[in-house]
Amino acid sequence: MLKSYTEAGQKYGVLELVLEGPKEGNPFRDQWVRGRFVSRSETKEAEGFYDGDGCYRVRFMPSFAEEYTCKVTASWGEEAEAVIPVGEAAPGNHGPVRVANTFHFAYDDGTPFYPVGTTCYVWHLQPEEVREKSYESFAKGPFNKVRFCIFPKHYIYNLKEPKQYPFQIREDSPWKPEDYNAEFFAKAPRTMFGGIEASVGDPEKVWDFEAPNPAYFAAIEEDIKRLGELGIEADLILFHPYDRWGFSKMGVEHENFYLRYLVNRFAAFHNVWWAMANEFDLFRWKTEREWESNAAVVCRQDPYRHLRSIHNCMTMYDHTRAWITHCSLQRIDLYRTAENTEIWRTQYGKPCVLDEIAYEGDLPYGWGNISGEEMTRRFWEAYTRGGYGQHGETFEREDEVIWWSHGGTLHGDSPARIAFLRQIMEENGGYMEPQPAMFDETCVANRGPNAKKDCLLYYYGANRPCRRSFRYPGQTFEVEVIDTWNMTVEAVGQCSGEFTVTLPRRPYMAVRLTRVSGS
Amino acid sequence: MLKSYTEAGQKYGVLELVLEGPKEGNPFRDQWVRGRFVSRSETKEAEGFYDGDGCYRVRFMPSFAEEYTCKVTASWGEEAEAVIPVGEAAPGNHGPVRVANTFHFAYDDGTPFYPVGTTCYVWHLQPEEVREKSYESFAKGPFNKVRFCIFPKHYIYNLKEPKQYPFQIREDSPWKPEDYNAEFFAKAPRTMFGGIEASVGDPEKVWDFEAPNPAYFAAIEEDIKRLGELGIEADLILFHPYDRWGFSKMGVEHENFYLRYLVNRFAAFHNVWWAMANEFDLFRWKTEREWESNAAVVCRQDPYRHLRSIHNCMTMYDHTRAWITHCSLQRIDLYRTAENTEIWRTQYGKPCVLDEIAYEGDLPYGWGNISGEEMTRRFWEAYTRGGYGQHGETFEREDEVIWWSHGGTLHGDSPARIAFLRQIMEENGGYMEPQPAMFDETCVANRGPNAKKDCLLYYYGANRPCRRSFRYPGQTFEVEVIDTWNMTVEAVGQCSGEFTVTLPRRPYMAVRLTRVSGS
Repeated sequence: MLKSYTEAGQKYGVLELVLEGPKEGNPFRDQWVRGRFVSRSETKEAEGFYDGDGCYRVRFMPSFAEEYTCKVTASWGEEAEAVIPVGEAAPGNHGPVRVANTFHFAYDDGTPFYPVGTTCYVWHLQPEEVREKSYESFAKGPFNKVRFCIFPKHYIYNLKEPKQYPFQIREDSPWKPEDYNAEFFAKAPRTMFGGIEASVGDPEKVWDFEAPNPAYFAAIEEDIKRLGELGIEADLILFHPYDRWGFSKMGVEHENFYLRYLVNRFAAFHNVWWAMANEFDLFRWKTEREWESNAAVVCRQDPYRHLRSIHNCMTMYDHTRAWITHCSLQRIDLYRTAENTEIWRTQYGKPCVLDEIAYEGDLPYGWGNISGEEMTRRFWEAYTRGGYGQHGETFEREDEVIWWSHGGTLHGDSPARIAFLRQIMEENGGYMEPQPAMFDETCVANRGPNAKKDCLLYYYGANRPCRRSFRYPGQTFEVEVIDTWNMTVEAVGQCSGEFTVTLPRRPYMAVRLTRVSGS
Repeated sequence: MLKSYTEAGQKYGVLELVLEGPKEGNPFRDQWVRGRFVSRSETKEAEGFYDGDGCYRVRFMPSFAEEYTCKVTASWGEEAEAVIPVGEAAPGNHGPVRVANTFHFAYDDGTPFYPVGTTCYVWHLQPEEVREKSYESFAKGPFNKVRFCIFPKHYIYNLKEPKQYPFQIREDSPWKPEDYNAEFFAKAPRTMFGGIEASVGDPEKVWDFEAPNPAYFAAIEEDIKRLGELGIEADLILFHPYDRWGFSKMGVEHENFYLRYLVNRFAAFHNVWWAMANEFDLFRWKTEREWESNAAVVCRQDPYRHLRSIHNCMTMYDHTRAWITHCSLQRIDLYRTAENTEIWRTQYGKPCVLDEIAYEGDLPYGWGNISGEEMTRRFWEAYTRGGYGQHGETFEREDEVIWWSHGGTLHGDSPARIAFLRQIMEENGGYMEPQPAMFDETCVANRGPNAKKDCLLYYYGANRPCRRSFRYPGQTFEVEVIDTWNMTVEAVGQCSGEFTVTLPRRPYMAVRLTRVSGS
């Protein structure tokens, strides 16, 4: 029975049709519901999902402000139809992010998207007051992408149990949530880099992997929506290895099952990205075939082709695979981090998002104790090599609320500088492409249909040249000296042909040459 | 005629026998003089050299405090003999530096030598007051090795003519020293990285390469002696490509001739090292065969087997060659500099001296504008990876006296920190060998017969861990926290087995564990 449906939709918004259906048996496994959405400009199919208590939902994201005829069919023989008028997109909703100009991004409506991301692995599973603090930080912070996990995270500083779980616990489970208490963790052996050994045992005996917990996913979709309203992309990590519950070990059939549920449920939100895994290479028990099988489910179930990636720890996935839209990279060298951007661009021919370049902080672990200066430098190195950095923060605090995992409040020096960089990015518009440069500098030129400035951007990193000479015969530029750390842009005036720009003998300087004439 | 000879010598000092001989023709080319030196423990032959004005000198460095019978023969038929008693070495003279424990150095008497070098390419060719300032700096500075060129240097900031030249100018030379004046350089084209095009034309028409200028070499040997008295090794660069006079283009026969003269003249000084070339790969007109031919001359003429190396710009020489005693390395990546030390140790199996890791300063060129922090970090990275850094300084100044080329006075922040490191090196004694470590730290253990501390040294570079945990079951250490930038050593006390050391959340920290018991 068609219980309800969206009466008036918006382009890039979510249309939803709600059906009442069977509750018997395991509806997650035994039933299905499907929609066919037809407007003047598009025809798409989308599978729905069971939301518990006899409630089935089919969601759809229209790409046009047109009238949609929506036909729903269900496994129990029901059919229903609704006609839904779809108006213009809500202000600020530019649709899903796509790859643009090979190495860059734009929203579906063509507006360029410059990823300025941060990582908060399980911010959404934290207590209410921490979650609200995260929203405050998101609202005022510079970030337009948050990378976070579907599953809870197990690690040092991550020993509290989440309020709820993604799957239903079997009645005869040998493990109960209360088994993971302080006493248990006090005795658990420690491994390297902050690992703590813990396992529920055979996860098949604990969880019914064919019975997702709808409330768990409903909570995440609320967060996806709220992030969307803040103009923030939800870069969803579908699997990760930091696990004590067995969600990283459910076997490929259950993985496929989970992904189908998840994608059916979330794909209609314009701001989701599918990050297949965090550090896939730490799942030593999973084969490439398993990842590829999971990727096929995501591709098949998602009618909107949201961005798809898979993130490494030490070894790269083959990012040339067709299902991978962009490279989600972790630096694999302690010293050459964002410096490898051009190499990866050349190797993979896709946008390079440096989703982990270490975190600003002071943790005892090498992945989490770089300075704000170094984080900022890595962002600039990435941008001036044609890629994009990603922030994270790891200060050890008494309350053990650490941005990188829990969200909350930002304490570091880099977010203000990253905000400044984002402002420069948006001021420039267009897409930055690496240019031949001296060995001790980076240089990008602004290309693409959306360039607001016809400019070249030079960056000198930790070096401290007292001046730089330029040679552009027959060309005239507005010259600016940018202090990326002190966040100033100093106008030097117009320069032509061969000219020298004086620099303040400090690190982290950039020079922007905006073309006035010549080419 | 034997005019004079050293009446009483010292071990590792210079014995000299002076003969009067023919002045006619070209004695540099047409005459020779040779000595045979016999004591109870050694028999060695050494060739002498013509010092102009009918004066021939044969020099010898005795390795034993014994009586030496010295027989001299000359090409004009003369023979002479002298018996010279040789006493103990002068205080502080430990003899030539040798390779020790594969990757390290010791003086001939077994005292370990930890190279803490600096580069002042042509400090010895500067005006007297600058040269005396250099001596003041050498006397108080931390350096025990100075790398400098035999030939004058041509480059930006290096446009003044030297007082004299290494070879005699032909009477009919088309070029005269006064041709290189301010007007000439104002018009000379500039190349990349500070290069300025200039050439005397065909150097064979300008210089008589078979007629060295004895006064030029006599001045250098005075500097070698004075450096020796300060306990400083003279790392002599025999060829370099930054040249406007043609000394880099004299052809292999004249190169062999020059090297024979030079080695005959300087080899008896205990503190010389032979650096075959600075940036050999920038001599694009020279073949490997030419370098090998020159190396053979140095090997043949030097009875004492002084250290021999050849330094790269972008491409490595094959440092496994038998004549090369140690690797004199320039970093070939802007970001991984001293970080490659273990790779080079493994590749070449020889001591690694990082003779160029960029210079502290603010020049417009990427090779010369790193911070004092970064210079110090590179020294520590090298030491805690089983190698050795080398300093240089390049602040642009109104007087254009820049340490890296001219010597003079030091202005940077790193020398004080390098002095602190040298103190730590000497306190530790022994030789540091890399140990397995976490990805974000370096660790070396003190090995070798001269270790004063049975210690492990951990270094954290630019990372800022708030603490580190150690696991050494059954062992007890005196633990110290070293702030390599603020130059403090803080005693933590004794720790055993598994223990955690609190660190101050600042970059550039090290931890030293000195074993008290266990192994």
